[in-house]
Amino acid sequence: MNTDTFILATGAALPGDPVDNDAMARRFGTNAQWVELFVGTRTRHFAVDLETGEQTHTLADLASAAAAQAMSRAGVEAADIDFLVLGTATPDMLMPATVNLVADRLGIDQVATYQLQSGCAGAVQALDIGARLLDEDRRTGLVIGGDVCAKHLVLDRDTSATPPGELINYVLFGDGAGAAVLSADDEGAPMRLTSVLNRFTGLGRDPAQVIHWWGETGQPEGARSVAEDYKAIEERVPGMAVEVLHELLDRAGWDSSSVSFLLPPQLSGRMTQRIVKELAVDGATEVSCVAETGNNGNALPFLQLDALAPRLGPGHRAVAVAIESSKWLKGGFTLEGR
Amino acid sequence: MNTDTFILATGAALPGDPVDNDAMARRFGTNAQWVELFVGTRTRHFAVDLETGEQTHTLADLASAAAAQAMSRAGVEAADIDFLVLGTATPDMLMPATVNLVADRLGIDQVATYQLQSGCAGAVQALDIGARLLDEDRRTGLVIGGDVCAKHLVLDRDTSATPPGELINYVLFGDGAGAAVLSADDEGAPMRLTSVLNRFTGLGRDPAQVIHWWGETGQPEGARSVAEDYKAIEERVPGMAVEVLHELLDRAGWDSSSVSFLLPPQLSGRMTQRIVKELAVDGATEVSCVAETGNNGNALPFLQLDALAPRLGPGHRAVAVAIESSKWLKGGFTLEGR
Repeated sequence: MNTDTFILATGAALPGDPVDNDAMARRFGTNAQWVELFVGTRTRHFAVDLETGEQTHTLADLASAAAAQAMSRAGVEAADIDFLVLGTATPDMLMPATVNLVADRLGIDQVATYQLQSGCAGAVQALDIGARLLDEDRRTGLVIGGDVCAKHLVLDRDTSATPPGELINYVLFGDGAGAAVLSADDEGAPMRLTSVLNRFTGLGRDPAQVIHWWGETGQPEGARSVAEDYKAIEERVPGMAVEVLHELLDRAGWDSSSVSFLLPPQLSGRMTQRIVKELAVDGATEVSCVAETGNNGNALPFLQLDALAPRLGPGHRAVAVAIESSKWLKGGFTLEGR
Repeated sequence: MNTDTFILATGAALPGDPVDNDAMARRFGTNAQWVELFVGTRTRHFAVDLETGEQTHTLADLASAAAAQAMSRAGVEAADIDFLVLGTATPDMLMPATVNLVADRLGIDQVATYQLQSGCAGAVQALDIGARLLDEDRRTGLVIGGDVCAKHLVLDRDTSATPPGELINYVLFGDGAGAAVLSADDEGAPMRLTSVLNRFTGLGRDPAQVIHWWGETGQPEGARSVAEDYKAIEERVPGMAVEVLHELLDRAGWDSSSVSFLLPPQLSGRMTQRIVKELAVDGATEVSCVAETGNNGNALPFLQLDALAPRLGPGHRAVAVAIESSKWLKGGFTLEGR
């Protein structure tokens, strides 16, 4: 970061009502008790109406709503925004980039816009780039993360014949968006972003999460659009999270006992519990949302920030960790309350 | 830009042999003379074997090859690279981001990677972000742009029933990648990047280029993956290009007569000719590639840079302009030879 980075306000947008595990069981034949116990995710939100199959929200809808809320809370207008950065794994279209549709919705024009193709580490990348874009001329920027799984959610599939490794994606993921207004000026800012860690660590390692897309030539026979190596994820993510935590604490010169809030990786309710235990930041209050929102990728750290904002008091320290298992990206950041 | 930005070297990668308009006519039933006259694109390269339909190159293949060439020419190793930025409209997958597969291929690890979802302005966005990432610690970075249309190229379609507005995409686009090694240090650098312009200007304007993607739920009946509003493109792009040119010249304090090389937008051979005429930088030598490479989106400004590099002498000035009609993005940059 070239200049101090303050967060003026945050915003969040989740589509429709929460969908619980009983509703998922009725729709997809998943076992509600099994999901509760082994996945630990109780509800999620979908940008698709599970009854009619109609897509109710686009990523542009959710990202615009989250950004508008953050702007309203920050007291900034469209004309105040000097840049937009959106992180997503699931753009509405390949072109135009969804960030430009969001700019249009918000009444923003004549500024630089950037869209990062990314997964669970995308919100951290957006914060990373956002913090670097602030300078003498660009004083205020909007950073957004969001994902919409609508194009991967097949409602009329015979789930009795679907292997568990695929079926888990139905209960694991959810849709949503979050946003933050960044500022180079401290006036009225409740938080300061003190460092960001964003690093590829996947040399020589197979991806553990793959999402394909198809164009006019269609989906090749037998190909599936989403695949995970859950064993690799379970084995590697907790250790990577511990490494990120310690590197962030070292950089900040913080003892773990001085940390008030911990924003851990949000893979699933159950995995997050396990990781929090391994992180062992004992005095810190955990800020998690995945058990209620599902894993909504690029939105998650922003949703956690949005939950943290009203609780972070002057002098409070917070550490966030995000791990993207697609090709093993480490992410995280530190914050101070003001 | 927070620090001086030098370009150490460039690289390019085009798949297979050039495919001329006669070969296109045999395969797709397009009229070779019409293409020559009204599109002005003579050849293009495809990452697909037009006989067998087999995909011969991925974006990761082409981006890695272009980057490896730029690194080799710059005399830098994987361990010297402090970050990667890739701009593309057509990632191989949604996750992992292709930039991470490229890092893996090149033997790069433990650095930040970013992938920008973008079209014709993507190479400029990559240069913009790359220049901003250089700082006291990050001295050398790789910026790459590329596109592969394989997923949109239907070989067995009945083209006699295809409307001209769709058929033109077959002859207009091509596949490829280009790259540049950026450095904060001037040693041995043949070029200095003196400014970058990157701006969304699409408020209230309909997109003139749309590319859709499909997931597990498939392509909706009657939907097409690629659509353009060629009338809007022809009407607006030349004027936008003139505006970018003048803004870049004003910023640099350059008179247009002092510009040695002009890198104009590369929509098609014919459109580029028209735009060059309107730009009217009379003393400058045009550096274009689209007539031979087709419109390969994010690769183009890097391919132009690659063609410029051996010709740009000490003190020479170059201006590049790129316009993305998807949602009306202005892009451009200025360079000086050293």
